[in-house]
Amino acid sequence: MPISGHHFIASTRSAEGHQTFTSVNPRTKTPGNVQFFNATPSEIDRAVTAAAEAFKTTRNFPTSLLVRFLEAVAYEIEALGDELLNTADMETGLGSTRLTGERARTTGQLRAFANLLREGSYVEAIIDTATADRPDIRRMLFPIGPVAVFAASNFPFAFSVAGGDTASAFAAGCPVIVKAHPGHPATSELTAHAINRAIVACGFPAGFFSLLQGDTVEVGQTLIQHPLLEAVGFTGSLRAGRAIFDTAAARPKPIPVYAEMGSINPVVILPGAIAARMETIAEGLVTSVTLGAGQFCTNPGLVLVIDSTETRQFIELAESKMESRASGVLLNASVERGLVKAVAETTRHAAVQTLTGAATIQAEGFCYPNTVLITHSQDF
Amino acid sequence: MPISGHHFIASTRSAEGHQTFTSVNPRTKTPGNVQFFNATPSEIDRAVTAAAEAFKTTRNFPTSLLVRFLEAVAYEIEALGDELLNTADMETGLGSTRLTGERARTTGQLRAFANLLREGSYVEAIIDTATADRPDIRRMLFPIGPVAVFAASNFPFAFSVAGGDTASAFAAGCPVIVKAHPGHPATSELTAHAINRAIVACGFPAGFFSLLQGDTVEVGQTLIQHPLLEAVGFTGSLRAGRAIFDTAAARPKPIPVYAEMGSINPVVILPGAIAARMETIAEGLVTSVTLGAGQFCTNPGLVLVIDSTETRQFIELAESKMESRASGVLLNASVERGLVKAVAETTRHAAVQTLTGAATIQAEGFCYPNTVLITHSQDF
Repeated sequence: MPISGHHFIASTRSAEGHQTFTSVNPRTKTPGNVQFFNATPSEIDRAVTAAAEAFKTTRNFPTSLLVRFLEAVAYEIEALGDELLNTADMETGLGSTRLTGERARTTGQLRAFANLLREGSYVEAIIDTATADRPDIRRMLFPIGPVAVFAASNFPFAFSVAGGDTASAFAAGCPVIVKAHPGHPATSELTAHAINRAIVACGFPAGFFSLLQGDTVEVGQTLIQHPLLEAVGFTGSLRAGRAIFDTAAARPKPIPVYAEMGSINPVVILPGAIAARMETIAEGLVTSVTLGAGQFCTNPGLVLVIDSTETRQFIELAESKMESRASGVLLNASVERGLVKAVAETTRHAAVQTLTGAATIQAEGFCYPNTVLITHSQDF
Repeated sequence: MPISGHHFIASTRSAEGHQTFTSVNPRTKTPGNVQFFNATPSEIDRAVTAAAEAFKTTRNFPTSLLVRFLEAVAYEIEALGDELLNTADMETGLGSTRLTGERARTTGQLRAFANLLREGSYVEAIIDTATADRPDIRRMLFPIGPVAVFAASNFPFAFSVAGGDTASAFAAGCPVIVKAHPGHPATSELTAHAINRAIVACGFPAGFFSLLQGDTVEVGQTLIQHPLLEAVGFTGSLRAGRAIFDTAAARPKPIPVYAEMGSINPVVILPGAIAARMETIAEGLVTSVTLGAGQFCTNPGLVLVIDSTETRQFIELAESKMESRASGVLLNASVERGLVKAVAETTRHAAVQTLTGAATIQAEGFCYPNTVLITHSQDF
């Protein structure tokens, strides 16, 4: 399917803007051929207004319709076949094994939400019937309205256009406006095609979904400030998440931001474990740290150990494993810059010693060597 | 019991500051004899630090201890007897019938939370045991940590020192720092005595409760910005609530604000109802509007009717009932000022017509005439 670089706004294509950007192949740093357009304020307004209009209908949809829609989205994503996987691989360098698994996770999430709807307890309905002392009080969760989803760079399917945030909003009957991640705009456009087909197939109002492209802060800020928007889902860095939260909190009517942001995932390894299983733990740790070129939410960033002769052997072993393992292709230039900056800031402290890595390397793609730094608890 | 004007900080009394204020009897506008001190930044820091220290213990308390404590607080409030009611009446002018009822509501709330703890479902425990596709996932609610409660002026018991926000935080095992409302500081001090006695009787850590007095914005802002504070409960005006929300959202680590703020409570009356029960509805409406001098959350502020001959008769009837009913004593100077300002802003519109009220009146206490304004939907 040809990639246009245009937005999906309530089932129609749009490209009013003049600013454009391209994706970049992280393995070769070559820019793609397609120009993607930054969404304009008027396009953003059209997307949110259409979403608010759609919500008038979808808020009252029986769950059976929402179930059908979620399953249709999963089906249409699978129907994109290898084209989706190849496009995502070109834009992220994540490889077909990982991407095939992530696609299964994404369609699995959509179907899991469909099953949750069938089961029904998610509305948390509470009925307290009247007694002599108390009136009849009833409570249940209900859909909030148009939701903006800011996609993440590191999961082009599972935390992107049709990822968990979108699936959960759809399941509740909330229209979604996705701000695509500029790291994989073609992958986003293909996924938007799949969602749009499901909208047509299920007879949903067109405004139930829009996809906006953009590589500037302004696109996101304008979207968050739209008065008809009711919530934001975000996955990404602490810095970007905080900016989004601040904008949402400063609105005349503040709206909730559901953000999944950075963590250092500390791991504690006790001497007994090192004594008993040094090789297994070192191998497991290094595999875990380097998984997905450090772009999994579960990558450990901090390992706490108690100093001893065996611990020193363990550190040496882990260090040599880190050194000998090939470093992965990083997602994009911004991830590479972020690593260079973070390591430089950390190694500036006199109490931090570099065991391996911590230097820029020449490579065809975006890259940084596997790095191990060490310090002591009294200096931390 | 003599009123000192001092704060309760983790069971000890404190009055380090130099700025003071007094309460004012709203029936006579006479200031009280006791000087109350504005809490200083160091007093605020001591209160929150003691709360964080107390939380290390109380977060792990079995519910049986919390049940006993909540019931002890209710008991100690009742043990204050008429002194509490008389003090509150002097500071708020709400009258002994209303205050007796409100005290019962307050002790009832404390006991209701004790019963909720016994029942246990409030932790919303969910256990999803592992299957082939899914790891074991467990979820439950847990206490968040030190909570600041900003008391309201209009309910000196039920939304004040030992009111619903405090009771719910206590029930969860969260220490509370109450910022007393400057409208009823002596009432607040007496209630704090009751809570403090319950703390001593139940062997709770002293920092589980503190009471800070203050009539400046600074006291509240400093409290909200304290890094060890984890949540805020607030009941009051939209303006004050928004300022509190903004401060909490701008912290390096934003914290949730649970705010109950102003509403206009619109009431819709259809022609059929007017035709069938004009007198009953007019009487009920006027009673509801004037209840508690307009200081109940349920006071209707906006009545929507469809123009007709009978509707006009109804409006005339309601107007004459509003006019002939004595206007209540307002809580304080700020409420009086707020009414004058709001009515002036509304009547400035050419399309708004005054039926009755909307003028300042000379009275011994804080007062404003019962007011009815009218406009049409096309001008609204």
